Amino acid sequence: MAKQTAANAATKVAILGFGTVGSSVAQLLRGQKFPGIELTHIYNRGVERKRTGATAKGLNSGIVWTENIQDILKSDVDVVIETIGGIDPIEGWLRKALSSGKHVVTANKQLIAYKGAGLAKLARENNRVLVYNAAVAGGVPVIPATLHGLQGDRITRLSGILNGTCNFMLSHMEQGAEYADVLKQAQAAGYAEADPTADVDGYDARAKLCILVRAAMQIGINPDEVPAQTIRNVSAVDFAYAKELGCTVRQIARAELRGGVLRARVAPMLVPKSSPIAWSHGTQNMVVTSGEFGGDVVFSGHGAGGNPTAVAIVSDLLAVVHGSNSVALPVKKKTVTGEFMAPHYLRFIVRDKPGIVSAISGALTKVGANIDSILQRPGYPKDALPFVVTTEPTLTSTVEAAVKAISKMNTMLEAPLCLQMLVDDDRAED
Amino acid sequence: MAKQTAANAATKVAILGFGTVGSSVAQLLRGQKFPGIELTHIYNRGVERKRTGATAKGLNSGIVWTENIQDILKSDVDVVIETIGGIDPIEGWLRKALSSGKHVVTANKQLIAYKGAGLAKLARENNRVLVYNAAVAGGVPVIPATLHGLQGDRITRLSGILNGTCNFMLSHMEQGAEYADVLKQAQAAGYAEADPTADVDGYDARAKLCILVRAAMQIGINPDEVPAQTIRNVSAVDFAYAKELGCTVRQIARAELRGGVLRARVAPMLVPKSSPIAWSHGTQNMVVTSGEFGGDVVFSGHGAGGNPTAVAIVSDLLAVVHGSNSVALPVKKKTVTGEFMAPHYLRFIVRDKPGIVSAISGALTKVGANIDSILQRPGYPKDALPFVVTTEPTLTSTVEAAVKAISKMNTMLEAPLCLQMLVDDDRAED
Ligand SMILES: NC(=O)c1ccc[n+]([C@@H]2O[C@H](COP(=O)([O-])OP(=O)(O)OC[C@H]3O[C@@H](n4cnc5c(N)ncnc54)[C@H](OP(=O)(O)O)[C@@H]3O)[C@@H](O)[C@H]2O)c1
Ligand SMILES: NC(=O)c1ccc[n+]([C@@H]2O[C@H](COP(=O)([O-])OP(=O)(O)OC[C@H]3O[C@@H](n4cnc5c(N)ncnc54)[C@H](OP(=O)(O)O)[C@@H]3O)[C@@H](O)[C@H]2O)c1
Repeated sequence: MAKQTAANAATKVAILGFGTVGSSVAQLLRGQKFPGIELTHIYNRGVERKRTGATAKGLNSGIVWTENIQDILKSDVDVVIETIGGIDPIEGWLRKALSSGKHVVTANKQLIAYKGAGLAKLARENNRVLVYNAAVAGGVPVIPATLHGLQGDRITRLSGILNGTCNFMLSHMEQGAEYADVLKQAQAAGYAEADPTADVDGYDARAKLCILVRAAMQIGINPDEVPAQTIRNVSAVDFAYAKELGCTVRQIARAELRGGVLRARVAPMLVPKSSPIAWSHGTQNMVVTSGEFGGDVVFSGHGAGGNPTAVAIVSDLLAVVHGSNSVALPVKKKTVTGEFMAPHYLRFIVRDKPGIVSAISGALTKVGANIDSILQRPGYPKDALPFVVTTEPTLTSTVEAAVKAISKMNTMLEAPLCLQMLVDDDRAED
Repeated sequence: MAKQTAANAATKVAILGFGTVGSSVAQLLRGQKFPGIELTHIYNRGVERKRTGATAKGLNSGIVWTENIQDILKSDVDVVIETIGGIDPIEGWLRKALSSGKHVVTANKQLIAYKGAGLAKLARENNRVLVYNAAVAGGVPVIPATLHGLQGDRITRLSGILNGTCNFMLSHMEQGAEYADVLKQAQAAGYAEADPTADVDGYDARAKLCILVRAAMQIGINPDEVPAQTIRNVSAVDFAYAKELGCTVRQIARAELRGGVLRARVAPMLVPKSSPIAWSHGTQNMVVTSGEFGGDVVFSGHGAGGNPTAVAIVSDLLAVVHGSNSVALPVKKKTVTGEFMAPHYLRFIVRDKPGIVSAISGALTKVGANIDSILQRPGYPKDALPFVVTTEPTLTSTVEAAVKAISKMNTMLEAPLCLQMLVDDDRAED
């Protein structure tokens, strides 16, 4: 499906809209991270302010910055990435882009929810690709996953948390705050707009639900057909009662195919605390699909933000350029080690005698491992006493050296158990 | 990338190995569910027993059943689906299939972990597709999701629960049982083999981890380089201590790129109860990827079983046949409704007077809605008293009719709040 270009010619890319998402895409494409892909044009109104702004830092000086959309539509770019938003005038521009042989990648949920079917038809007619994984759940690849990984199933139900703003607000209300206060908080944190209507009244989640229904259930659906119920009248008392019912309250978008009818709704709902849907906190998004054959699959992650959304867009771009089946599995080699810098859990079974703890801690100190805690639960026999030492982050081999020494102590009734503790240390890096 | 066949010619498919997974794939392909795809050959040793067995019920009578692998390799099938397992003799057979122009879909983790790079190279040389999403996490589409949806990110860390048998055993041990007992339970339930080595000693999860590292981090890695630690010596006492540390114990497969070195390990580890990794219960699989730009993404679902694994295989097959970018978004229409049959939560704020509850329950009874519970928390003022009624499953419009009547009662201080409760009712169906 990839556009045929001369061998080795770079794929030329334009970005429409240099805001939060558009500028993150440009930064992600910077440097030689994705060989064969070249960002050549950036379009925005009042573009000079963007070109000289902080978000343009480090971008290739050869990029054409323009505030005339014709400079893009009449150019020889291969792929147009649209990160402006809204239906008008975007729909017309993207129709022209597709008609003139450009692939389109967009993050625009309203456009795709209302006009996606027509745009997809136009793309097919022009043998071009239209992709919009970023339009639903931002950095959570639920659309590629359902399109490529679940197309063999028949998905009959899906439910999700598709609006991070509402989830942020409702998960804060769960701690006892009132609606008006968490709205102010969300606005201050930059999660909610001055006019929060699209989020709190469910229109944003509804557009995403319709796109998801189309991708996962293959059913065309107009957002206006789906009831959206506001979260404005949910109050702290509802969380207190929900708790008594073993539940919490979340804005849920759900659809279900039953008896030939598609039931769909966006509304604040009571969600059992035991349900995966309740796992989602803060601005996180979450989708649960239910397949006739494969059962429930859960997806979760960052539903918004410049960088996660840019990941979805660039992934789409790569799929357009390379064709998704030809993802080359490289043979890059790295040194491999089983060593982690991590806290460790050491469990000993001993015949209890004075001095054991000091002998063990001595062995740990000798290799340079620091003890974080020593635990001894009551109720076990003194002649086969289990107790536990946890260490501060230590290299696997270091801990193992100490364990080896300790296992030779004659009070040890069996080989100590040494387990890594999976706690978040610093980010991995390279 | 799809093999060019004459217009409208069906894609011919062979299945090698008619066991749990192979027979589920055949059943999933039955009927006209996937137009243009035809199951033409089934290979298995002692095939007669398979052809006449219960798992062959309903399959097309035109299918060629054979116990001679040459009947497949010399046939004109377009795609070979391999669900036998093991490296020998499968590797040789699949090399021949690729060389003779057949695409290959496989669920074989050992083969791909040890021989995947060579097979992928051969596939590329022959302009054929080799796909194996079913080899990792069964029905959870983590490979398509990372390949297609996260390729724009740089994944520096991943951790997962990749072996359902160990997760079943350890999540049962969490309830207080000992290792030997849960192993017997797992064997009785069909989750563990008579020889549980591959599962409990980590070799199964290790092969999957290597495949995942290759797909998500683009690093070639040999399973033998990765330490695997057994779960055999984890005992009930460790769960008691883990609990005191706010943790549980799970078999974790993890990899992390740091300072140019890939750290990788499969082992029982302590996992904080607050971590998404601890959400996974029973035989469920779970993967968390950490991207430099997109942050953490969580995937979870059924990691094994005939049907979930068959979904992954058939999804791969469809991607091979249609090319993943050309997934047609259909314009199928369904009647859409916002109505759900669900329990509802009704919250009222009233000026407290005798008879209110009976008036409300009367209004609900009148429309045919049954009350499930009435909740009144202490401590609220009598002149603005919130209380809650929950209903048994009732149609949205029915509940709303009652709410409308109730909202007119003059004791109501504000409009009642009516929320759907998201509890699992019967499966959706069509
Ligand atoms: N932000 C997220 O987390 C997220 C996540 C998923 C999807 N999306 C979608 O991504 C799109 C962009 O979102 P965003 O957050 O990046 O918005 P944004 O920060 O407001 O960026 C939009 C950019 O487009 C420009 N623009 C707006 N209207 C224009 C017009 N008529 N002509 C020319 N330029 C115009 C804006 O210029 P000015 O600076 O002059 O206003 C701005 O630079 C939207 O469709 C949104 O729904 C966003
Ligand atoms: N089961 C799962 O949940 C699952 C999940 C993910 C991936 N997988 C993978 O899928 C593959 C198949 O698993 P499975 O559970 O379906 O196994 P299975 O039930 O044992 O099926 C294997 C089939 O292959 C046949 N077979 C074995 N060796 C053969 C040989 N040398 N020549 C001809 N036929 C042979 C077997 O025939 P007999 O009946 O004569 O033994 C059997 O019908 C394995 O690679 C497995 O790792 C399985």
